[in-house]
Amino acid sequence: MSTTTARAQLTELEAEYEALGALGLTLDLTRGKPSAAQLDLSNELLELPGATDYRDAAGTDLRNYGGTDGILELREIFAELLGIPASQLLALGNASLSIMHDTMVHALLHGVVGSEQPWRDVPDIAFLCPVPGYDRHFAVCEALGVRMIPVPLIGDRLDLDRIRSLVADDASIRGMWCVPLYANPTGSSFTPEEVEALVSMPTAAPDFRLYWDNAYAVHHLTDDEPAAADVLGLAARAGNPNRPFVFASTSKISHPGAGVAFFAGSAENIAWYRRHTAVQTIGPDKVNQLRHVRLLKSAEGVREHMRAHRAIAAPRFAAALDILEARLSGVATWSTPKGGYFISLEVPAGTAAAAIALAAAIGVAITPAGSAFPYRDDPRDSNIRLAPTFPTLEDVATATDALATCVLLAVARSA
Amino acid sequence: MSTTTARAQLTELEAEYEALGALGLTLDLTRGKPSAAQLDLSNELLELPGATDYRDAAGTDLRNYGGTDGILELREIFAELLGIPASQLLALGNASLSIMHDTMVHALLHGVVGSEQPWRDVPDIAFLCPVPGYDRHFAVCEALGVRMIPVPLIGDRLDLDRIRSLVADDASIRGMWCVPLYANPTGSSFTPEEVEALVSMPTAAPDFRLYWDNAYAVHHLTDDEPAAADVLGLAARAGNPNRPFVFASTSKISHPGAGVAFFAGSAENIAWYRRHTAVQTIGPDKVNQLRHVRLLKSAEGVREHMRAHRAIAAPRFAAALDILEARLSGVATWSTPKGGYFISLEVPAGTAAAAIALAAAIGVAITPAGSAFPYRDDPRDSNIRLAPTFPTLEDVATATDALATCVLLAVARSA
Repeated sequence: MSTTTARAQLTELEAEYEALGALGLTLDLTRGKPSAAQLDLSNELLELPGATDYRDAAGTDLRNYGGTDGILELREIFAELLGIPASQLLALGNASLSIMHDTMVHALLHGVVGSEQPWRDVPDIAFLCPVPGYDRHFAVCEALGVRMIPVPLIGDRLDLDRIRSLVADDASIRGMWCVPLYANPTGSSFTPEEVEALVSMPTAAPDFRLYWDNAYAVHHLTDDEPAAADVLGLAARAGNPNRPFVFASTSKISHPGAGVAFFAGSAENIAWYRRHTAVQTIGPDKVNQLRHVRLLKSAEGVREHMRAHRAIAAPRFAAALDILEARLSGVATWSTPKGGYFISLEVPAGTAAAAIALAAAIGVAITPAGSAFPYRDDPRDSNIRLAPTFPTLEDVATATDALATCVLLAVARSA
Repeated sequence: MSTTTARAQLTELEAEYEALGALGLTLDLTRGKPSAAQLDLSNELLELPGATDYRDAAGTDLRNYGGTDGILELREIFAELLGIPASQLLALGNASLSIMHDTMVHALLHGVVGSEQPWRDVPDIAFLCPVPGYDRHFAVCEALGVRMIPVPLIGDRLDLDRIRSLVADDASIRGMWCVPLYANPTGSSFTPEEVEALVSMPTAAPDFRLYWDNAYAVHHLTDDEPAAADVLGLAARAGNPNRPFVFASTSKISHPGAGVAFFAGSAENIAWYRRHTAVQTIGPDKVNQLRHVRLLKSAEGVREHMRAHRAIAAPRFAAALDILEARLSGVATWSTPKGGYFISLEVPAGTAAAAIALAAAIGVAITPAGSAFPYRDDPRDSNIRLAPTFPTLEDVATATDALATCVLLAVARSA
């Protein structure tokens, strides 16, 4: 492109950006939150279980204390969806993030099954973090002093050679963050070969853990509805039954603030979890668990419910992707997720932060640059995470279009 | 008493005990749980807030993520009841025990406001434990490696001289468990002088904390309904604003498994709590908080609701106390609580464990001997905790009467 053409384009983009600024937009693509229409799908929860319905199938009065494992009916539904025996799946509080945090805390203070000492007594503890990844995973590690080792994805794939080599050599590496299906933000899913590699690879640390956050296990955006990998069975057969800590929740199935979270693992891991949480709680909100059983009814009920979610969310993804295609082809690349809550946009190196700042200045909130990386450090300054579910369809389009202008302007300015 | 008389009494008691054993009782006075009739008082919760009611007064959609402080309407109700500004009171998850545990964990891993280092980096950390006290408080300390120093009550009163002397001399003492109203198990309440002494006493540790568990703030059993002490205001005026961590919950107001817990403290303590829980949760179950606002309506609504609880619980206490009076006068002493959930029974030294074992053998479950003491060590083997609320009125009477026989038999056998 000639200097003259480039200058003309820059002038045009500056004018376009100025015009956008004059619109006084207030749009937000920052967080993976269901839209109000999606929340409406579960409004029955707001009057469930009903004034005389407070016993589980075994006849236990769920209004009182106790029942630390959660109610069996709900565990059975999610056992089927996650491919995990109900005996190894606990139904707990309202946030899987809390369970992830708390298992890390218990590991630090007490060690896990197979630890020689509490992790906090080891001079250096590290976790592998495939990047780009989930900011709240990284925040847990950062807050608790667990060193993070970023391992960049290669396209959609884990860098298995590097992961294998790191965990084989370095005993300070005690775990790895995993989002096996529709990862945040890339939307990528583990292949069967990747799952097999992760559960079977030799590790220098005897107490290595996969923090297996199956946050989007049933959150499909296409007709393809793959089943969750049998990570616990595969790990057991590989001789590493205690390696996976599995997390899931109804947060993006029912009402995010008012849902139910799950923890699963080997029998030994479940016993470990029970032991360390026995002093922390007298039991989860079992009435809310019953509420979810009454709403969702069965595993098939959850699948049907998620198809209704898809009908609302998929058009928003399509709108955002259409605009990216129309405006950023040849300039940027992006994921085309088959599930989950995010689109990962890769812009030319050194322009992500500038584009996000430009967007913020005209009222379009985008997740801060670097958020998908440990310590908020995107070494290429190229990743932008888009969350298209929460705004209206029209707002998604307007915001994505405005962001595209900001990306093009940032690129033009940096040329 | 002559040896002959004593022998005759022992024979009579053995026969009475044998007769009780033949009844095949299955009674339980172990835990402070509301009865089904008490739970029924809050059954409206099971269909609240209603299918179209999911916004707080500010218009926020409570079904989605966020709102880590809890909803303002509920905080305002309990702010009034606890005598704490709503800005310093957070409405959180379903268990104050979890908040107590987690604040202890945060203190261990990070220190509290005023700490020179994380508590876990200090070779020895200790908490004062007035005894008899609450077993779950002690379990938190034991699990987390916090040494417990029992400080026996003198009658109903704290041993302030000993407490003052210990905290002034020993910097390893970083906290003290406090149940300011209707303590578990003694039912005793702090006097204004005791509260003043606790908030103002000089401590060797600069980061000393009162773990102020106001679990029974509105759980009166008589017409006397004392207001909660203004512990935060008094501490601030004494120059120790950060000393109290205040805990409370609706567990014994609404449904224990499905209630709301509260944390309160100075502005600095609240900021500290927010900082360390920001990585642990995206927010509490705000829909359940709204549910409680709709049920309870106001502070006066809570007071009315608690009077209905009292109408159910008080007769059970009276039944147990009448039987203790009729059968154990001159042999044992006991508390006559004006609120809370427990009766504390003092039997002759060396007979509590034996009496409890005798009761267990005839189907009357009593909280294990020593439970009200750190490390389950009742040095006099004299304390028995009775929880009369959960069984029916008839069962409370039968169980207490059977226990009285067991106490008398244990005493007679040990004579």
